[in-house]
Amino acid sequence: MSRVYNFSAGPAVLPEPVLQEAAAEMLDYRGTGMSVMEMSHRSKAFATIIQDAEGDLRSLMGIPDNYRVLFLQGGASQQFAAVPMNLMKNRVADYILTGQWAKKAWQEAGLYGTANVIASSADGNFSYIPDCSDLPVSENADYVYICENNTIYGTKFHTLPNTKGKDLVADVSSCFLSEPVDVTRYGMLYGGAQKNIGPAGVVIAIIREDLISPDVLPGTPTMLRYKTQADAGSLYNTPPAYGIYICGKVFRWLLDRGGLEAMQAYNIQKAKVLYDFLDASRLFRGTVVPKDRSLMNVPFVTGDDGLDAKFVAEAAAAGFVNLKGHRTVGGMRASIYNAMPIEGVEKLVAFMEAFEKANR
Amino acid sequence: MSRVYNFSAGPAVLPEPVLQEAAAEMLDYRGTGMSVMEMSHRSKAFATIIQDAEGDLRSLMGIPDNYRVLFLQGGASQQFAAVPMNLMKNRVADYILTGQWAKKAWQEAGLYGTANVIASSADGNFSYIPDCSDLPVSENADYVYICENNTIYGTKFHTLPNTKGKDLVADVSSCFLSEPVDVTRYGMLYGGAQKNIGPAGVVIAIIREDLISPDVLPGTPTMLRYKTQADAGSLYNTPPAYGIYICGKVFRWLLDRGGLEAMQAYNIQKAKVLYDFLDASRLFRGTVVPKDRSLMNVPFVTGDDGLDAKFVAEAAAAGFVNLKGHRTVGGMRASIYNAMPIEGVEKLVAFMEAFEKANR
Repeated sequence: MSRVYNFSAGPAVLPEPVLQEAAAEMLDYRGTGMSVMEMSHRSKAFATIIQDAEGDLRSLMGIPDNYRVLFLQGGASQQFAAVPMNLMKNRVADYILTGQWAKKAWQEAGLYGTANVIASSADGNFSYIPDCSDLPVSENADYVYICENNTIYGTKFHTLPNTKGKDLVADVSSCFLSEPVDVTRYGMLYGGAQKNIGPAGVVIAIIREDLISPDVLPGTPTMLRYKTQADAGSLYNTPPAYGIYICGKVFRWLLDRGGLEAMQAYNIQKAKVLYDFLDASRLFRGTVVPKDRSLMNVPFVTGDDGLDAKFVAEAAAAGFVNLKGHRTVGGMRASIYNAMPIEGVEKLVAFMEAFEKANR
Repeated sequence: MSRVYNFSAGPAVLPEPVLQEAAAEMLDYRGTGMSVMEMSHRSKAFATIIQDAEGDLRSLMGIPDNYRVLFLQGGASQQFAAVPMNLMKNRVADYILTGQWAKKAWQEAGLYGTANVIASSADGNFSYIPDCSDLPVSENADYVYICENNTIYGTKFHTLPNTKGKDLVADVSSCFLSEPVDVTRYGMLYGGAQKNIGPAGVVIAIIREDLISPDVLPGTPTMLRYKTQADAGSLYNTPPAYGIYICGKVFRWLLDRGGLEAMQAYNIQKAKVLYDFLDASRLFRGTVVPKDRSLMNVPFVTGDDGLDAKFVAEAAAAGFVNLKGHRTVGGMRASIYNAMPIEGVEKLVAFMEAFEKANR
């Protein structure tokens, strides 16, 4: 067995100890005589798994008691509809467009009410985060929506927008658990698990209790109502049980590593290795305004499409895989989530140095 | 490691060779250097996994070219809304109530239009399948809906209803791949994977092409539109990739065992062991009208709640687990899906014989 360095934007690298444990427990989870995949979601064993997962997540993020944790399905894309269906009481919401996922969320919200764009960085191909200190927040907006870390463009809100008292809703898919977070700043934050947390097919939503109500838009499917899921402790129907089990193992792994402050320090150190190299390189350059750079997704280019393609191919052959950038940015993108070891980034940079020398 | 005989109604027992392969491939899927959980859903390796899964399912079920196969999320419960949102063009549909899941589907459809009950076995606590040879199908019904195998009550439609030309929509969650099926009899059939196919978090829908259209009810989320998923080959957003991979392994296992005709023969033989015992027992009896008995879910009772509880506890201690019946039926239920070996049922019956002797 030989593991590669996997820079995929998602689904993405997971901690090796998590995968090793999952493999060891595949046929017999802790003396139950069955796999977690085979386990009734109403069993005691699974109740412990999901409760421990929630408890560990609460302690990692310091989630206050007046916030509920929901394990959902359908990816962030399904939340693009569920958010307005559940929260658009006045049928008005304000969106800040910082990339493709924020845009998709905004378009979907338009099916359900008036979705205003109150800031955008489309004019710079989403290479920066707009100033959100004094936005024209709508008087009757039900919420202000952001995509906090932009996987494709490699930007991150390092300062949350001033929502002027409105509830902030944030898609945190690609920065989930990468650093400490003040949950009380949000009405709701949510993300797909498949970047920093676990396998695809699990969405984790953290919602302030007062936003969970039976008063949803007409036609909201029972499964998409937050109240359905909150009342049933995410067990209204069979949840994505195996995915939740893997997420739980990742939460334990994060706690064992010292929690989110330790991860933040590690992630800053790790990203610095790559950003410092990019800033000094005469071949490669980052595509994002430095102050808005993501710690998780690092897009970079040579400026020459042919050379980019050559780099991606040679890197893959050397065991640095999934470095091709998104078509809307071009070039390369290294996603360096929690589970990417710093050695992976150091070796990538060494490889980039050698490539630069050979191709100048 | 010691495996139990797991009679859970779902999530349920999976084939051991499938779990063994999954464990072996957990850290390095066939030389890719990563787990399937870590793999981009846009990668070549995953494209092969999902295409092979679909191809194998098509060959197992003989799915005609004018039917699409969709890998979805959210369980059957989410389809309870998606079906009317996509198919209720006239806002009228006819439902046949044969248990809790059919009832939930019917109630959800009522959010979107007129959902008529055209037959029901509620009068007999759903212990039988009503005669559906000449039902009052609504003239303008968009479809007729059934839950083909009723997990809780242990009944199965052995003859499909006469829909008088209307499209039949069937939830086949608990009989999926248990026997050959004539797909052309359905407009759509679908089911959660977590009973006969794979882990929870995957729904497989098989839909006749002409039913997939952009003309859906207003407010249908993009993710819930069949057209979105069909146009994108189930890759509109990140699918539940690991679950699909396990489903694919189960499809291969079924093909290796001789396909659905062989499984049907095995399932008939297997269920007969238990039903024959129940019919001869002076302590235990089945709760379902014999002609409507499911091959997959076998509810039975002693008639004495205390004795039922004693049986369930002693059986669990002997390695026959998850035999407690659903609260609405009481007593016991043995779910004996494809992956339950006949030895499991034979040993259960031997245990029941001994229990009967000791408790008469």
